[in-house]
Amino acid sequence: MPRFVKKQSHKTGLAPGSLVMVGEPKEAAPRIRRFDFDARRVEERDLAAADLDLPPEAPPTVTWVNIDGLHDMDIIARIGRRFGIHPLTLEDVVNTGHRPKFDDLEEQLFIVFKMLDFDPQTDHIRSEQVSLVCGDGYVVSFQEAEGDVFEPVRSRIRKGRGRIRTAGSSYLAYALMDAAVDRYFSVLETIGERIEDLEREVLSEPDRETVNRIHELKRELIYCRKQVWPMREMVGMVLRSDSDLIRDDLKMFLSDLQDHAVQAVDTLESFRDMLTGLMDLYLSTMSQRMNEVMKVLTLIATIFIPLTFIAGIYGMNFKYMPELEWRWAYFGVLALMAVLGIGMAAVFKYRKWL
Amino acid sequence: MPRFVKKQSHKTGLAPGSLVMVGEPKEAAPRIRRFDFDARRVEERDLAAADLDLPPEAPPTVTWVNIDGLHDMDIIARIGRRFGIHPLTLEDVVNTGHRPKFDDLEEQLFIVFKMLDFDPQTDHIRSEQVSLVCGDGYVVSFQEAEGDVFEPVRSRIRKGRGRIRTAGSSYLAYALMDAAVDRYFSVLETIGERIEDLEREVLSEPDRETVNRIHELKRELIYCRKQVWPMREMVGMVLRSDSDLIRDDLKMFLSDLQDHAVQAVDTLESFRDMLTGLMDLYLSTMSQRMNEVMKVLTLIATIFIPLTFIAGIYGMNFKYMPELEWRWAYFGVLALMAVLGIGMAAVFKYRKWL
Amino acid sequence: MPRFVKKQSHKTGLAPGSLVMVGEPKEAAPRIRRFDFDARRVEERDLAAADLDLPPEAPPTVTWVNIDGLHDMDIIARIGRRFGIHPLTLEDVVNTGHRPKFDDLEEQLFIVFKMLDFDPQTDHIRSEQVSLVCGDGYVVSFQEAEGDVFEPVRSRIRKGRGRIRTAGSSYLAYALMDAAVDRYFSVLETIGERIEDLEREVLSEPDRETVNRIHELKRELIYCRKQVWPMREMVGMVLRSDSDLIRDDLKMFLSDLQDHAVQAVDTLESFRDMLTGLMDLYLSTMSQRMNEVMKVLTLIATIFIPLTFIAGIYGMNFKYMPELEWRWAYFGVLALMAVLGIGMAAVFKYRKWL
Amino acid sequence: MPRFVKKQSHKTGLAPGSLVMVGEPKEAAPRIRRFDFDARRVEERDLAAADLDLPPEAPPTVTWVNIDGLHDMDIIARIGRRFGIHPLTLEDVVNTGHRPKFDDLEEQLFIVFKMLDFDPQTDHIRSEQVSLVCGDGYVVSFQEAEGDVFEPVRSRIRKGRGRIRTAGSSYLAYALMDAAVDRYFSVLETIGERIEDLEREVLSEPDRETVNRIHELKRELIYCRKQVWPMREMVGMVLRSDSDLIRDDLKMFLSDLQDHAVQAVDTLESFRDMLTGLMDLYLSTMSQRMNEVMKVLTLIATIFIPLTFIAGIYGMNFKYMPELEWRWAYFGVLALMAVLGIGMAAVFKYRKWL
Amino acid sequence: MPRFVKKQSHKTGLAPGSLVMVGEPKEAAPRIRRFDFDARRVEERDLAAADLDLPPEAPPTVTWVNIDGLHDMDIIARIGRRFGIHPLTLEDVVNTGHRPKFDDLEEQLFIVFKMLDFDPQTDHIRSEQVSLVCGDGYVVSFQEAEGDVFEPVRSRIRKGRGRIRTAGSSYLAYALMDAAVDRYFSVLETIGERIEDLEREVLSEPDRETVNRIHELKRELIYCRKQVWPMREMVGMVLRSDSDLIRDDLKMFLSDLQDHAVQAVDTLESFRDMLTGLMDLYLSTMSQRMNEVMKVLTLIATIFIPLTFIAGIYGMNFKYMPELEWRWAYFGVLALMAVLGIGMAAVFKYRKWL
Repeated sequence: MPRFVKKQSHKTGLAPGSLVMVGEPKEAAPRIRRFDFDARRVEERDLAAADLDLPPEAPPTVTWVNIDGLHDMDIIARIGRRFGIHPLTLEDVVNTGHRPKFDDLEEQLFIVFKMLDFDPQTDHIRSEQVSLVCGDGYVVSFQEAEGDVFEPVRSRIRKGRGRIRTAGSSYLAYALMDAAVDRYFSVLETIGERIEDLEREVLSEPDRETVNRIHELKRELIYCRKQVWPMREMVGMVLRSDSDLIRDDLKMFLSDLQDHAVQAVDTLESFRDMLTGLMDLYLSTMSQRMNEVMKVLTLIATIFIPLTFIAGIYGMNFKYMPELEWRWAYFGVLALMAVLGIGMAAVFKYRKWL
Repeated sequence: MPRFVKKQSHKTGLAPGSLVMVGEPKEAAPRIRRFDFDARRVEERDLAAADLDLPPEAPPTVTWVNIDGLHDMDIIARIGRRFGIHPLTLEDVVNTGHRPKFDDLEEQLFIVFKMLDFDPQTDHIRSEQVSLVCGDGYVVSFQEAEGDVFEPVRSRIRKGRGRIRTAGSSYLAYALMDAAVDRYFSVLETIGERIEDLEREVLSEPDRETVNRIHELKRELIYCRKQVWPMREMVGMVLRSDSDLIRDDLKMFLSDLQDHAVQAVDTLESFRDMLTGLMDLYLSTMSQRMNEVMKVLTLIATIFIPLTFIAGIYGMNFKYMPELEWRWAYFGVLALMAVLGIGMAAVFKYRKWL
Repeated sequence: MPRFVKKQSHKTGLAPGSLVMVGEPKEAAPRIRRFDFDARRVEERDLAAADLDLPPEAPPTVTWVNIDGLHDMDIIARIGRRFGIHPLTLEDVVNTGHRPKFDDLEEQLFIVFKMLDFDPQTDHIRSEQVSLVCGDGYVVSFQEAEGDVFEPVRSRIRKGRGRIRTAGSSYLAYALMDAAVDRYFSVLETIGERIEDLEREVLSEPDRETVNRIHELKRELIYCRKQVWPMREMVGMVLRSDSDLIRDDLKMFLSDLQDHAVQAVDTLESFRDMLTGLMDLYLSTMSQRMNEVMKVLTLIATIFIPLTFIAGIYGMNFKYMPELEWRWAYFGVLALMAVLGIGMAAVFKYRKWL
Repeated sequence: MPRFVKKQSHKTGLAPGSLVMVGEPKEAAPRIRRFDFDARRVEERDLAAADLDLPPEAPPTVTWVNIDGLHDMDIIARIGRRFGIHPLTLEDVVNTGHRPKFDDLEEQLFIVFKMLDFDPQTDHIRSEQVSLVCGDGYVVSFQEAEGDVFEPVRSRIRKGRGRIRTAGSSYLAYALMDAAVDRYFSVLETIGERIEDLEREVLSEPDRETVNRIHELKRELIYCRKQVWPMREMVGMVLRSDSDLIRDDLKMFLSDLQDHAVQAVDTLESFRDMLTGLMDLYLSTMSQRMNEVMKVLTLIATIFIPLTFIAGIYGMNFKYMPELEWRWAYFGVLALMAVLGIGMAAVFKYRKWL
Repeated sequence: MPRFVKKQSHKTGLAPGSLVMVGEPKEAAPRIRRFDFDARRVEERDLAAADLDLPPEAPPTVTWVNIDGLHDMDIIARIGRRFGIHPLTLEDVVNTGHRPKFDDLEEQLFIVFKMLDFDPQTDHIRSEQVSLVCGDGYVVSFQEAEGDVFEPVRSRIRKGRGRIRTAGSSYLAYALMDAAVDRYFSVLETIGERIEDLEREVLSEPDRETVNRIHELKRELIYCRKQVWPMREMVGMVLRSDSDLIRDDLKMFLSDLQDHAVQAVDTLESFRDMLTGLMDLYLSTMSQRMNEVMKVLTLIATIFIPLTFIAGIYGMNFKYMPELEWRWAYFGVLALMAVLGIGMAAVFKYRKWL
């Protein structure tokens, strides 16, 4: 559940703008990577905290500083000073329990979104918060921990593929968001496969763990929705923003990104409907099996209880029971029992109870 | 499930605008068909990849190039160059996992929608993506595979029926969308018939496969909704667009098309409600049958268990059991049993348990 | 189900604007009735197809031509030519599977809506499509079959009651819509009574047909909603339209009509909630009855099974069973059984299981 | 159900604007009360039908005429003439099946709303329609029957408390609506108490009437929602209206009234959720009880059926059954039975089935 | 339930603007605390009722008067006169059953919201109404009882941390709202932990109290939603307001506050979905357990009932039963019984019923 509400209690009582990390702090020192590139050249460097005082290159060069790890408040504060980031914005950066959002801060764009990952070991969806501060000629990105989601973007910068080296800082910000949404689809693929597996399981051989598995997938879906829904809104807000930082030719890419986000939401809704349907199917399958078992019980009981009663009658020890003396009584009773038993089975068959 | 999320993993890491097909590639070579027509004449030709360099006829002639098959990137790229289609647009064309959408690209309209088909063999709804690029004097349509949905449009062009030869390229684009929506209704008819069949089955003789059939139809409906809902929005966007390519007299036709799309959505919603009702009906029918079976068990058990107990008493071997010696005891006990049994059955009858 | 999607398959492949009737054709020849009236006089006439070439009277006289039956394409086409109706509009007229809609065609208003009827024989709601073409000085109304819904309007015209003879053609169109909505309420009354009957049935003596009846009423409600919802939108569109044909003093009447349509929708939503509640009530009533039956089974079984066991013990034929020889053993065992049986019944009573 | 749709059938076929009462007519003669007041004086009078021809006092005096009873069409028509009320408006006044609404009729405001009352005898919510016609210097209010809801307003007028004597006719109209909404809350309080009672009942000792009580309260809630929802809209429309009759300083009061209406709707939604939760709780409580009963049955049956079988074996009359002759066989079998019985009970205990 | 609708009955009939407390009056005398501060100094004082006549300091000093306890109408009225608060506003202040709202009263802002608290003793969420009147240079805050929610704000004022001493009265109002929303998250954390506990309980060892606990948490959630939803709207209204009292640089803080409120609502929705899922899981777990118990019953009954029947046959006392005399009959019957019993168990195993 800590995934759903991050502990903020230790933050209560601080002034807005105080830098306190909300979330699980990582042990390792944050890694700071810096790219400077323009159409012709790329410079890639790992920075120490002290190097942060270097000024970014002036445009047309784009500087991308990526910080992996949010627990070192000193580094966060330095970066804040270095790029002129508002304290309230920095507070949002380190509060990893934040909702995806977009703020147009005149000189800068501030974008918060979530990266999703399906952890195959725990079968849980992990989410990680990414914050982007995008100004003229620079993008600062903050991640909770090192990850490989931005690797494709790095590779494109290194190789100069596409327009990434020439289209300015807001295109870089777009490319980072696009990489995150691409990852959403791989999470959705995994969920889709799980649903398919579960459906096969329910239809062939459901067991008592099946319902727990459906429940867990449902919970993951709820979690996933909580992260993806606001992404859609957020991209819409970027698209409708009239910031000077967003060049006109970026709109088309952003609109494409929004299409992808909407599609992710659509797919989640479909999955939700399918899981609900699966639960219904499971329950009705279970009750059907139960019915079959009960029918067997009923068959056996209703056939043999009367027969046993008849046997009980002739097991009584009354002195005067004329039938007991009859020559063929025993066989007659056996025949009667056979007729009764077969007759009742026939009635059941006829009424389609079996 | 691959229907719900198309595998995009192999695409991750490519720059936006890279041409990679998302979806199942077909083996056969793409077929390219070209129509050139105006009010007086029609020219119909199959093109080889090389012929693509021929310029389209200038308006008032309308050129319609239809490509069946999206796996040959060379052809796609050639067509892109030939008609000046933006790389991002081409990327959307070959990504068959796309959401229906409309983009007004100034000189061109870009329209993506889905064609639906009910495959009677698998009982699955198949969807195929169609992309239209509509410019002044030409329409380029991309389909995943050869199909017969556009055949009526071709036939109308050949015969010159209606206004299709005279109303320009955007009317042709409308006619293609209209053909797709017409096909939706034939899918809806099939679903409607299935629901009717299932309802009859539930009311007369439901078996253990019935619930699976309801579940499968429900899943198909979810899939169908996912394709049809955005169609409605998309047509609305075309209708509200102020592109010069859309002539005023087309608005009325588009508005008609939107009516059809809305009606398809309405019908889907009704079907959804009906399937939910059907599931409820099935479950209550099942539980009613169960109840009947249980009532029979209860009747038999509650009547015969006490009687068997009485028989058991007189089957005891105690030395001093005065009744055993009585002359009419046996018949008296038999009579008692009959009275008891009939009495209990009467009580059940009276309480309406049977 | 044909009610939900009308077969349109035979229409696929025709150019938009082709006149093909969608729906069940009636055998009888269409009846064409013509009213011409102004404040002082009324002329009422049945027309033959040939008479259609007569020009309508010029305003201020209002001409109302009513066609009952849509299967004679020749008549439809004649009327189209006579009143200058667009082919696409005529296509909508004969496609009885259409959605209620309003089109402002500059010179004409085109209105499609549904008339509802509760058929007491089949317990089905029948819907019939009505199309109105309203121009300056004339209204043409198309019905699927002869009906009595418009009779009150005719009577008002004949008697000159209210403002119907003086308020122009759009008031006549309004009066026709109003008559249809009035009929909705009588259908709603019938549904309301059915729900009340069903509620009484569920509370007093539900049987196995009850759930089918609830299901059928639910399906009728789904069908009814599908017809009535778009009516609300449609009237709203007429109200907001700025056509010259709609005189200012009509707005108040239209607003009143919209109130009625909204109220019909509200009532349908309430009915829907009530039917859902009724289904829940039925299911819980059924399961309660089942519980009672099961409790009786449990009572009988748990009391008599142990007693029968005791009887069984003393029915064993061991040679050395000292109790069998005791003088009062039999009566002692009988007493023990009585105590046990009564004790268990008391425990059940105490635990409120009975 | 007549509560949900009022019989309008006898009205079908009349021209809009015809005065026909829809609803149950009351027997008693309508009571007409008239207040004339300004800041300094109040005059209160009961009017006979004939007195209606007296002109209302001119502003700044406010005249309030209240009519209790809508079945005397003559009086309604006289009042209509006297205050210049449009026939269509009068028709709405006497149609008590109307939806709450607000019409700005230029010279007058026309307001329809519902008063609610919880009838403790039938446990039903009664609703009564109130119509207000508010013009410059006068308010005419129509009620279905005499009631005490407006008594507080009368008392305030008499005592001159608050601004009621000085704030004009629209303030009086507001005060009447406010009195009705105040009454909503007392109905909501009653419903809230019922829900609390039901919850206590479900948690402690639910019986077979409980589900009916939940169902009935649910139906009352559906009915209540149908009345209160449109009230919210209606007050919003009054608030946004730009009629000259609504003085600026009234806006604040109206906004307060809207807050109350919204709160009533919120509370109804919460109640709805709570009743749904209560139904779920009831069902799961019932099924839990059932489970307990079934477990006892299973315990008794599974322990004694095998034991009875053993007793049955030694009750057989075979000639050669060596055990029967053994000295301690009987006690050995008894011991075996005890061990078996206790063992099975232990297994059940261990598996937590008991 | 009194939590859901506060008793307002004793208020009915009073003029709007009458000061009557709605809610539970507290016994203790209200505590009045006053802060006067500007950038350089802070003055903190407890006021007696009489001191209220002191005028607030003029800006740039900000005066914050906090009243804990709303039952002393004299004090409320005095404060009202002192700060020029409208009687209708004061009425809202003492009506603790009010909905969160924002009113822009030209010279003042009036804000009502709810503070939430999870009472660990009763497991109930308590809500308390807070009203703020914010004018130029002063904020008056009304609380139902003394609480510690505003303590962090007081501490920040005392220590001069952040911008609270310099940013004017509306920033103070914001800080108070922010403190309340911070508290929401600690309530949400508690609910989240409860859900997690319940989920663990359902998955491991659900008992008959579990469903009650789920139900109670659900009810608390409904209550919580009712308080938090309108908070979101209310903050949005403050944000969109164009009052002069709200300085431009406050907008960013308010937007941040709205983000938090939206996030609280999102989390509540997720919780709601999770609790629904939990209820489903509980029910299916319960029914699964039931199934297992029933299967054991069926196994035992269907194996032993036929065997007992066989024993019964040979317990009959017929004179002529040839088998009884056979030498190995007894052992043969025993063997037959063993074969039958094992065979049936094998069939069950094979059919996966066990």
